[in-house]
Amino acid sequence: MKFKIIEELDYDEKLVIIHPSNPDPRDPVSNLAKISVNQKQDLVKVIFSESLVTKKEIGVSKSYFEKLNCTIKTPVSISTRVKPKGYPIIKKKYEKQKWSKDDIQIILDDIYNENLSDLEMAAFTLSMQYENLSMEETEHLTKGFAYHGTKIEFNEPVYDKHSIGGIPGNKVSLLIVPIVAAAGLLIPKTSSRAITSPSGTADTFEVLAEVDFRAEEIQEIAPKTRGMLVWGGQLNLAPVDSKIIERVERPLNLDPESVIIASILSKKLSTGVEHLVLDMPMGPGTKLESKEEGVNFAHSFIEIGRRVGIEIDCAITYADQPVGHAIGPALEAKEALESLTGKGPRSVHEKSIELAGILIEMAKLAPKGNGAAYADEILRSGKALQKFREIIDAQGGDSSIKPEEIELGQYVYEVKSKKDGYIAHISNSTIKSIARALGCPNDKKAGLYLIHKAGEFIKKGTPILKLYATKENDLENAINIAESSQLINLEGMVLERVSSFPYSKN
Amino acid sequence: MKFKIIEELDYDEKLVIIHPSNPDPRDPVSNLAKISVNQKQDLVKVIFSESLVTKKEIGVSKSYFEKLNCTIKTPVSISTRVKPKGYPIIKKKYEKQKWSKDDIQIILDDIYNENLSDLEMAAFTLSMQYENLSMEETEHLTKGFAYHGTKIEFNEPVYDKHSIGGIPGNKVSLLIVPIVAAAGLLIPKTSSRAITSPSGTADTFEVLAEVDFRAEEIQEIAPKTRGMLVWGGQLNLAPVDSKIIERVERPLNLDPESVIIASILSKKLSTGVEHLVLDMPMGPGTKLESKEEGVNFAHSFIEIGRRVGIEIDCAITYADQPVGHAIGPALEAKEALESLTGKGPRSVHEKSIELAGILIEMAKLAPKGNGAAYADEILRSGKALQKFREIIDAQGGDSSIKPEEIELGQYVYEVKSKKDGYIAHISNSTIKSIARALGCPNDKKAGLYLIHKAGEFIKKGTPILKLYATKENDLENAINIAESSQLINLEGMVLERVSSFPYSKN
Repeated sequence: MKFKIIEELDYDEKLVIIHPSNPDPRDPVSNLAKISVNQKQDLVKVIFSESLVTKKEIGVSKSYFEKLNCTIKTPVSISTRVKPKGYPIIKKKYEKQKWSKDDIQIILDDIYNENLSDLEMAAFTLSMQYENLSMEETEHLTKGFAYHGTKIEFNEPVYDKHSIGGIPGNKVSLLIVPIVAAAGLLIPKTSSRAITSPSGTADTFEVLAEVDFRAEEIQEIAPKTRGMLVWGGQLNLAPVDSKIIERVERPLNLDPESVIIASILSKKLSTGVEHLVLDMPMGPGTKLESKEEGVNFAHSFIEIGRRVGIEIDCAITYADQPVGHAIGPALEAKEALESLTGKGPRSVHEKSIELAGILIEMAKLAPKGNGAAYADEILRSGKALQKFREIIDAQGGDSSIKPEEIELGQYVYEVKSKKDGYIAHISNSTIKSIARALGCPNDKKAGLYLIHKAGEFIKKGTPILKLYATKENDLENAINIAESSQLINLEGMVLERVSSFPYSKN
Repeated sequence: MKFKIIEELDYDEKLVIIHPSNPDPRDPVSNLAKISVNQKQDLVKVIFSESLVTKKEIGVSKSYFEKLNCTIKTPVSISTRVKPKGYPIIKKKYEKQKWSKDDIQIILDDIYNENLSDLEMAAFTLSMQYENLSMEETEHLTKGFAYHGTKIEFNEPVYDKHSIGGIPGNKVSLLIVPIVAAAGLLIPKTSSRAITSPSGTADTFEVLAEVDFRAEEIQEIAPKTRGMLVWGGQLNLAPVDSKIIERVERPLNLDPESVIIASILSKKLSTGVEHLVLDMPMGPGTKLESKEEGVNFAHSFIEIGRRVGIEIDCAITYADQPVGHAIGPALEAKEALESLTGKGPRSVHEKSIELAGILIEMAKLAPKGNGAAYADEILRSGKALQKFREIIDAQGGDSSIKPEEIELGQYVYEVKSKKDGYIAHISNSTIKSIARALGCPNDKKAGLYLIHKAGEFIKKGTPILKLYATKENDLENAINIAESSQLINLEGMVLERVSSFPYSKN
């Protein structure tokens, strides 16, 4: 059969239109049918029409057709979906049985081949939410995720840094990559774009250079520059994991522990990573609510890493307030560049050298306990800044850019304190709401700057927040949120601080 | 806005077409929007079209429009769905927390108001599959299911019989209702149509009379006849439970224990039942695989019954082979009528008087242990047959019908034994497949008759099965299944029989 674009209809659903003289291809249970294009399948809903298509045509909207990534001449066929082998295996979890390596591979193959309905995928993902997988199962899940999809390979050990949780303003990767690369280690870092947070590392670095590279380009460029900062989203790394995230985890807002581990480590496996420092932000609104939870989670990561061949060190970091002062792509890129010139905030500097130092210790460039000092030296000497400019250049950006040349939104507003007092708490979730209202992460010039942070004493009328927008309307919405929120609680002195962890010094 | 039927498209999906100049009403997480018609809501997928609808129209297919049960002039509006209050509560189960009465009501209200996506409904149902609810939670679930939907009320105690599992040929309700009604008790039995089994009680009785009655009609007729046999499906009893079954349990082929209990008992609550005998078939392919499991399940039913005000007795019954010989609506109706005249098979007779006897004992018409004899007497005296004819008459059927007048499929075939031996086992699942091929349950005249049952010695060439169909093609398909299946295993003597339970005597 052939595709026909139905101009009358616009949708991006998995939905096709066929002529009713064809046999009904729908599986009576899920009500879905399967189309096959090239070597790929897709589970689709079916609509019948006598007038819009002929018996030999499969009607689709332009938007959905574009998603299928083929040409109008590509033959397409429709059939009843094969009964998934994976679903009876998923059901084993109802009786709390363990999955074998083969079990997991069968399920993941079914997901890869688009042979599971959303409901069946939910049954799979929820089973792991209700019952944690064993170490062995998580190992197989990690390897299974890495099995399908792109592999990026190098002829030398790859180092990497990864943060497991969305903490606003976390621009430290923009310092860690050049520090570690300047130390001579290979660190081609893939990172994500923001979904709900104000800016992902890829969004931030995109202010300065391109981030969208193909696997072969990364394999070519990275060994020369020693470091890269690229967007991982388009590389087709661990595509089964991405399907689970998109079809179940995001709509249901869930995140089973075993899947977090397998999701992160499978992408590291696919990009050749052998040494990894894991930033684990802890605090309200993060994935970790207590230090104990963090330590347990860290042990799981380290053990799965050991099983799949990745050396992992975990750093549980303080995440009660944003890292540094700047939030939003351009503001964060600016603050990162300032930090590389030695003019950044202490929290950004310290978190960066501590995490980079762990990788330096793993590489045995410095003895245990001296990595941070080694990293600090690279930063202070200007070598990291020089490396950063080299990376910007290799990724097609303007390597001579100065922090003050980075453009910010032209609509600006300062939120001022309404009384005297200590800043007791800066809520990450309110900061995220304000940033979203300002237009982050799509509007790169939008963002906010925390003029003062928790613990500081300020007088009535002192500016505490500065907002940037490119649209007047966005600025107004953000002002409304900021002025009406409990963003900053000024009553009394800060009584309690978590300060027993390395990164709580700011 | 107004409906517009889009003749060009045919589908029964929850899918509407709107003009792109309307604001996008879709919730970005589930990609669904909400339409409101009369007091009711529906979550729908959205397609945009500039040519098929105007800004003031909502396009739907004729099939979907008919499902909405309104007129073309009924105003309809589309909006973004309200964030469900129920979903955060569902997520409590990820941390193994208990649901309160209010928690459960909020979730069920969200389901009733069509405010949960299929994925969110799956999260709810699967949570109960992975973690059994407590007695208290199951009690609230039962009452919660009964809260929405029709209530049928009587001024006297209602008796009822219910079977929890699909065992082919289980026509005993057609005997139990007239026996119990002839004893003077009120038993307006609602039952289901078959989904995957050869015939539901409603399908079988429909061969003899109407089964589709409104609540008011049942309230009017039943007190006079004392018994009825009606289809429960259209009565809107516990509609939230029906949505869960249709949207999650059936597609995922799952059946959490707490939901089975709440599902059955909520419908009993809604129809005023105070005394219930529960038939719990046990054996391969049923819900119960061992006697222990059955006893535990029975205790849960009895306890939830106590909490919601229903006296329950459970009978774990032998379900290793079909009840009686006849399978399929017309064949079963015929065998039930024969049994009422004293000419039926022993297994049908015994199971019927045992279960009816339990209700008779509950009503204190006979002392414990004597109920079956009391029921047997009603059956043998002809009073049950007379009552059965009275019920057929009240439900608009031909009350003078004789068993031999019931029409069966004209295409007939006898499956013969290929060697001498004992019939070792008759597989319920193969019988179901043959029955489905013959056209059951929609083709009422289709079905099969077991000429010999397990344990009997037969000679080569003896007919063991008789097939009936109304279409030659159906018969051929069924013959293929029967001849190629392990339906009857003739090798050697039956070595083991489960015979410690009351109904394993056949």
